[in-house]
Amino acid sequence: MSNTSPSPALSHIDETGKARMVDVGDKANTQRTAIAQGGVRMSAAAFRLLSAANNAKGEVLGTARIAGIMAAKRCAELIPLCHSLPLSFAGIDFITDEAACSITVRATCRSDYKTGVEMEAMTACSIAALTIYDMCKAADKGIVLEQVRLLYKSGGKSGEWRAPDA
Amino acid sequence: MSNTSPSPALSHIDETGKARMVDVGDKANTQRTAIAQGGVRMSAAAFRLLSAANNAKGEVLGTARIAGIMAAKRCAELIPLCHSLPLSFAGIDFITDEAACSITVRATCRSDYKTGVEMEAMTACSIAALTIYDMCKAADKGIVLEQVRLLYKSGGKSGEWRAPDA
Amino acid sequence: MSNTSPSPALSHIDETGKARMVDVGDKANTQRTAIAQGGVRMSAAAFRLLSAANNAKGEVLGTARIAGIMAAKRCAELIPLCHSLPLSFAGIDFITDEAACSITVRATCRSDYKTGVEMEAMTACSIAALTIYDMCKAADKGIVLEQVRLLYKSGGKSGEWRAPDA
Amino acid sequence: MSNTSPSPALSHIDETGKARMVDVGDKANTQRTAIAQGGVRMSAAAFRLLSAANNAKGEVLGTARIAGIMAAKRCAELIPLCHSLPLSFAGIDFITDEAACSITVRATCRSDYKTGVEMEAMTACSIAALTIYDMCKAADKGIVLEQVRLLYKSGGKSGEWRAPDA
Amino acid sequence: MSNTSPSPALSHIDETGKARMVDVGDKANTQRTAIAQGGVRMSAAAFRLLSAANNAKGEVLGTARIAGIMAAKRCAELIPLCHSLPLSFAGIDFITDEAACSITVRATCRSDYKTGVEMEAMTACSIAALTIYDMCKAADKGIVLEQVRLLYKSGGKSGEWRAPDA
Amino acid sequence: MSNTSPSPALSHIDETGKARMVDVGDKANTQRTAIAQGGVRMSAAAFRLLSAANNAKGEVLGTARIAGIMAAKRCAELIPLCHSLPLSFAGIDFITDEAACSITVRATCRSDYKTGVEMEAMTACSIAALTIYDMCKAADKGIVLEQVRLLYKSGGKSGEWRAPDA
Repeated sequence: MSNTSPSPALSHIDETGKARMVDVGDKANTQRTAIAQGGVRMSAAAFRLLSAANNAKGEVLGTARIAGIMAAKRCAELIPLCHSLPLSFAGIDFITDEAACSITVRATCRSDYKTGVEMEAMTACSIAALTIYDMCKAADKGIVLEQVRLLYKSGGKSGEWRAPDA
Repeated sequence: MSNTSPSPALSHIDETGKARMVDVGDKANTQRTAIAQGGVRMSAAAFRLLSAANNAKGEVLGTARIAGIMAAKRCAELIPLCHSLPLSFAGIDFITDEAACSITVRATCRSDYKTGVEMEAMTACSIAALTIYDMCKAADKGIVLEQVRLLYKSGGKSGEWRAPDA
Repeated sequence: MSNTSPSPALSHIDETGKARMVDVGDKANTQRTAIAQGGVRMSAAAFRLLSAANNAKGEVLGTARIAGIMAAKRCAELIPLCHSLPLSFAGIDFITDEAACSITVRATCRSDYKTGVEMEAMTACSIAALTIYDMCKAADKGIVLEQVRLLYKSGGKSGEWRAPDA
Repeated sequence: MSNTSPSPALSHIDETGKARMVDVGDKANTQRTAIAQGGVRMSAAAFRLLSAANNAKGEVLGTARIAGIMAAKRCAELIPLCHSLPLSFAGIDFITDEAACSITVRATCRSDYKTGVEMEAMTACSIAALTIYDMCKAADKGIVLEQVRLLYKSGGKSGEWRAPDA
Repeated sequence: MSNTSPSPALSHIDETGKARMVDVGDKANTQRTAIAQGGVRMSAAAFRLLSAANNAKGEVLGTARIAGIMAAKRCAELIPLCHSLPLSFAGIDFITDEAACSITVRATCRSDYKTGVEMEAMTACSIAALTIYDMCKAADKGIVLEQVRLLYKSGGKSGEWRAPDA
Repeated sequence: MSNTSPSPALSHIDETGKARMVDVGDKANTQRTAIAQGGVRMSAAAFRLLSAANNAKGEVLGTARIAGIMAAKRCAELIPLCHSLPLSFAGIDFITDEAACSITVRATCRSDYKTGVEMEAMTACSIAALTIYDMCKAADKGIVLEQVRLLYKSGGKSGEWRAPDA
């Protein structure tokens, strides 16, 4: 279940040491999934404002969800060596931890394509988290994005991968 | 030096509880700076590949720098309630910690405008870090983006702010 | 020929009531067509200027056509829950009604993909119409975009659909 | 209060009959506001789904609001001869008419700049309305965008303008 | 009239040898103009098709003009170290040389800003020329973009500059 | 090996003389390659600065490579009648000619799609060359982009094509 390719290498560096896009022309389309996760931890005061009247948390998370989904679709414009690809799905979920004053952002992307959607999920998660930061920064500029990372991927030659603790 | 506005509130939620862009029409242009920072921690094996022959690390960080700078300029396209603004500067620096197998990404943005550039710096930092992830993920899918946060801001009505430990 | 699915539902709202992108991973590629139409009605004075010397109408409609085609290609960047997809065709036609001082904008989009191109056609039609507004607004700020709607779609599981009066 | 400039002309057509961007280099910055409005009329069945459980209407309108605000910021990318400009505010409001199965979309944009923000408001209104269409089209493909038009503008040399019936 | 700054240097490389955006925070806004020019030379057969019935040349050049103007506005998204700036004007002119089967593309950009608009003019000229290539390549894949270069700039600290033969 | 289609025509002009996107709905996916090339010629003084200490040339070319690859992915946003398509590869190579003070930019694009990738290669080459111009213009505003053209294409109905002297 782990990534045990015998000779890992930096596929984005060519033999002359230059950055390159990987040529996926010979790869087959397969169903790809990737799930990325990150945390947004804020002060107790900011978290209380989020949870107060007027459904503030709903609006913040709703806006962050849309931002994350839209960012997934534009990932290849942002990450220089990523391939443009047609996503069949991008979704964002949130888990709120009141005790820790923290919101976990989870992004799921899927495609039936020649290359994986890890970057789409990682980018969607990051932009959703940044949107939460943006909408709460008036109450706490010290909000931290914690541990943005890949939880899971499947599809392609390297198959399924799961974060050790996921 | 801390953000001690007496009544913090979620400026991006209006009185009816809906998400909104803040109206900055009455604000004056002032010189704004923001510095954001985040870490990219990878496995020892991946870090060794980065440091191996062929200047791989230089290429990866050079590509990440460009990605971060370009993302700073497009921040308002990604973060729904951010204002478009003309950046006078966007820059990315890296600090490598060999012992920790970690790269610190620091993004600095400046503008002479009516609203701050915190989101530009946070977004630039995140996209640069994601680019490092992308270019190294063939060697380690478990790379983690750690502690993306604001270190410093100045300008505007709320003036200077510094992260407690910065 | 009408849309008679027995249990219509808001496919973009999930079971918990949140906005979502529809997962099209299990859908097959089929030839999709969509045609959208809208009107641009202006004052007689503005319409006369359009029809005056120098081929003004040709330039305005030529510019609007290009704007509409380009917008069709970028629909998924604008409409949050739309899928990116490769259009095989996007085209814009105009029908001028001198008596009514009105221009009908018709947008046709096609794709061989898993989801329909209604939004691409609707967006192309709207942006072409807005471009006409932009180029004529110096003569008439009261120009109205009328009745932007879908005329026809084909392809996919729901098959062919035609507006009742189309 | 009406637009009575003595010799209206198509400012976007030059003396040789070609499309052009207006040169605003000699204009002064002034506070500009524009308000645009349009309607989205759907079937009673679709409207009932919107108003059903799970806050569907809230999610649809919340998503449309974000789409409209983001489109306002990207107007100059879509409308060929529009100037890029820094918006100080973009906002979207909705008025629901249960009897008419219709939602009115109102977009307000403001800028302190050399040219007006009519196109930003018209584009924001259109994209918000198209987003409602997108999210409800599974229930009614025949939804109509009605009467997208400018209600009000102020600022600049031509000053204030109000739609005759606004 | 030539660029005789005593110690030219690569302003986009910092003291440690890394690519950087120039910080224009201390520069004053001044009226800036830049004019760039390039040629598009094609086969006689392709050029004849352009000049044939149906106003083909008018459509091709009209489309190229719009493409060039739109590219000028998006220059900072394409050229990594360029600053986003508000253009007050972008225009494209064409000069056709029947004997040489060549079209000269001239792009003019203006801004009242802290940094020059040379890149906006060079990019607009290139994208307009590429659009001509695109629309004529079915008749001649060997069309050449020749001598894209700056003809003139004014404004800013370095003042006026004119190409030696312009 | 040459493009000898018996009746060349301007495929982007329809029978009524209007610009149009070609409908590729009936074309089959085939492996497509295109290679474009252009030169960047600068003054001896500017070229010396590039070759001086601190790896300036490496940074400039590294930045230009990233700009070119990113532009290839966004070609359809820039060239009005181009189709969006998923590139399987985009790469940029440079050949430096010290004697001529010139850098040759070569762009290679590949896709398995219904239409060719000539425009992607031409656009990537142009934007990479413009990036070199941008980063060296402080030392020489008179840098010239020379002879941007297609060297080679393969795939599709028209098959292989090679520039006469390539």
